[in-house]
Amino acid sequence: MLAAMFDAEKAVADFVRFGSVSADPSAKAGMDGAVRFLSELLRRHCGCEVEVVPTPGHPVVIGRRGGDPAWPHVVVYGHYDVQPQDPLDEWNTPPFEPVVKNGFMYGRGTADDKGPLMVHIAAFAKLLEAYPDFPVRATFLVEGEEEVGSVNLAAVMEAKKEELAGDFVLMSDTNNAGPDDATITTGLRGLACLEVILRGPKQDLHSGINGGPVMNPIRALAKLCAGLHDEKGRVTIPGFYDAVRPALDWEKAELARMGDNVEAYKKLLGVPAFVTPEGYGVFESRSFGPTLEYNGITGGYQGPGSKTIIPAKASVKISCRLVPDQEGEAILDLVDKAIRARCPQGVTMEIIHHSAGDPYVVLPPHLSGEGLDSAKARAFAAADREVRASFGNPPHYLREGGSVPILSDIRRILGMDALMLGVALPDSCMHSPNENLSLEVFRRCTKVSEAIWKAVARK
Amino acid sequence: MLAAMFDAEKAVADFVRFGSVSADPSAKAGMDGAVRFLSELLRRHCGCEVEVVPTPGHPVVIGRRGGDPAWPHVVVYGHYDVQPQDPLDEWNTPPFEPVVKNGFMYGRGTADDKGPLMVHIAAFAKLLEAYPDFPVRATFLVEGEEEVGSVNLAAVMEAKKEELAGDFVLMSDTNNAGPDDATITTGLRGLACLEVILRGPKQDLHSGINGGPVMNPIRALAKLCAGLHDEKGRVTIPGFYDAVRPALDWEKAELARMGDNVEAYKKLLGVPAFVTPEGYGVFESRSFGPTLEYNGITGGYQGPGSKTIIPAKASVKISCRLVPDQEGEAILDLVDKAIRARCPQGVTMEIIHHSAGDPYVVLPPHLSGEGLDSAKARAFAAADREVRASFGNPPHYLREGGSVPILSDIRRILGMDALMLGVALPDSCMHSPNENLSLEVFRRCTKVSEAIWKAVARK
Repeated sequence: MLAAMFDAEKAVADFVRFGSVSADPSAKAGMDGAVRFLSELLRRHCGCEVEVVPTPGHPVVIGRRGGDPAWPHVVVYGHYDVQPQDPLDEWNTPPFEPVVKNGFMYGRGTADDKGPLMVHIAAFAKLLEAYPDFPVRATFLVEGEEEVGSVNLAAVMEAKKEELAGDFVLMSDTNNAGPDDATITTGLRGLACLEVILRGPKQDLHSGINGGPVMNPIRALAKLCAGLHDEKGRVTIPGFYDAVRPALDWEKAELARMGDNVEAYKKLLGVPAFVTPEGYGVFESRSFGPTLEYNGITGGYQGPGSKTIIPAKASVKISCRLVPDQEGEAILDLVDKAIRARCPQGVTMEIIHHSAGDPYVVLPPHLSGEGLDSAKARAFAAADREVRASFGNPPHYLREGGSVPILSDIRRILGMDALMLGVALPDSCMHSPNENLSLEVFRRCTKVSEAIWKAVARK
Repeated sequence: MLAAMFDAEKAVADFVRFGSVSADPSAKAGMDGAVRFLSELLRRHCGCEVEVVPTPGHPVVIGRRGGDPAWPHVVVYGHYDVQPQDPLDEWNTPPFEPVVKNGFMYGRGTADDKGPLMVHIAAFAKLLEAYPDFPVRATFLVEGEEEVGSVNLAAVMEAKKEELAGDFVLMSDTNNAGPDDATITTGLRGLACLEVILRGPKQDLHSGINGGPVMNPIRALAKLCAGLHDEKGRVTIPGFYDAVRPALDWEKAELARMGDNVEAYKKLLGVPAFVTPEGYGVFESRSFGPTLEYNGITGGYQGPGSKTIIPAKASVKISCRLVPDQEGEAILDLVDKAIRARCPQGVTMEIIHHSAGDPYVVLPPHLSGEGLDSAKARAFAAADREVRASFGNPPHYLREGGSVPILSDIRRILGMDALMLGVALPDSCMHSPNENLSLEVFRRCTKVSEAIWKAVARK
């Protein structure tokens, strides 16, 4: 029994109001609320039976709209968790009170991933309104730990692999090249995250009384970090690049088709200059190159003015983005080993491993040469056609710099490839203040999703 | 008219209850309370007229106990402000609720500088109780900005230099070598504090979508900081060591007399190893060598777990401890210039100067060969005698690693040298959690102060 006409944009706003920050233990109410809201939505509008699968972390929401076992089976993947909202003072509107302005909805999760997930829920709900017996089985697999490394989803998939294995995964958690340049993502980078803590004196010391013979943990950390890139901008971890596979010719051609508007990109990010590692151009380094980034550093006095101490400790959060055929766990081990070997004198070191995921590549059937009559191939073809119609341009087939590490697990455990339709834009501020969703792109993408669902149904 | 018998230890505790953190704009109530408490104390127990001199920052409290212009005039210097109390969770007792346990009083300011200042207030109050016409003029000059660089005291001294110029300055804001090893400090290091902020993208970026061509401000800051010391532990700022004057022979002999208990010191601080700059031993590097320390570093995500961003900025607080004949402002300029010249590519730089002060040396009359009949010489001699009596050991005459930059201004503006009697101990945790005062040392030092006041009176 389906409910009244589905209002997709209102649903995005309602979903965003739950501050479901998976990294923040104090955000439990937001997580719980998002789970309840999503479950109700899938029941009321997508004809689903919903199971909330508990994990040692945040639960996985599985909505199943079954049917004839002969019908194609599409698995929609998404995540209901969001990034932390800080720095709060840089938001123009409260992160969990969505506001629509000039055709954009602002709020944490609008672009990553509550809005994009809603594209496929809305398209399916609309089709069910028109065709209650729509002949596609749909499973909505929505996790609450994507922003903290999807640590428990693989175990859930292992436990339920029979019922979760469908024809392909449909998902939107990637970026478009621009508002008129829809992008079907053909690859994502892997991720390896860790944290390094250096400890010196047992507590903060007076920098005058004791300063001289004591190794300052911040100095030690700076030395350690400074050694992780060489003068050419390349990562100095032994073996880091060994598994890196060069980009394919058609990938380079697609990237070249985007143009090379470095100045516009520089302005978008607001950086004074780009600094690329040797061997990569500006856009190549995002799509085809691995990175080692510092996500946060802290140590000593953080308040106003000065406080003349030698801090007891200093720490840094590091994440590496990985490209085929680097492997997350292997890189984590290489980085760990190299950093341990370089522990500066006068401090002790602790390393915490946060998460790791492998990079991912999926070739669209028309580029890979595989058969064109599978549900997956029909979906890719429909996406290509409807993008041309709705956006006025053919889709870009590009590898993206971000990571959805769970896609490798989906392939390994459930044997499915993914069709990744971009919904967010380069200036959607994913993971940043003032995250936003273009409602025009949201509507266009919903039409593309409808076309995909219909093409899958049409055997 | 003097009030009832002065209870010195209760007065320290009452003084500590005012959370007078000069660096913290939200601590105004604590600052105001400390000023009121101190003013009342000086009026009631030290026979003073009190003037609270406003400044652009925190006021200076001046208590004057006048008398016959022929009487010697001692100026007691101290400060009523304290260091910030963080990290709060490392305190065993609340920082502004003093607790006495096993002969030690715990609380922020017990050792720096509310307890030590109270030594001289208590000694003078006691003498006035016994001798209401005690023939010494006393001025208590107590500032509220010592922990933030004494930025306004020099102007107050300039404005009131006639009335503030006495025979010498008596002060306790320095350390003893141990509970039985009173120390009369013969020199202090200067200080040059600044903060460096590096900015990259205009806001935090998704490290996947944009990672590759963007210089991470934390990486840039690590590179910058790592270059400020060479492999031998020496500061690489051009000209940094040019003005450094070698220690005198008697200074080296006094330091050697302390022994060289490196293992005990290592254990006290809890460091795995000492790392000294080339050319200095462990204790020499504190007393005779300059430093460049990092007091705090921050940038990017500070919360639990991971957040995969490239931060918009990163910053570090730097302070240099200086030795004769380095000059605070000159070193600040050298450091500023060298850091600006090394700004990494891909970021912009802002440098904020916090404060600067020159190092200070004072030779005790029996070591300098100057006349022994001045009020100052009588005070030094009395301190030497009473330390032997109260502590059972002769005093140590040592240069200390800390800084009281205002002493150079006092000498320049008011023409006075300082007698610095240590009250704090190496494990008093000045500037650290669990700051404490040995009440036994406090009582011994109060006797030494009484002997000093009496010797000054006895022409």
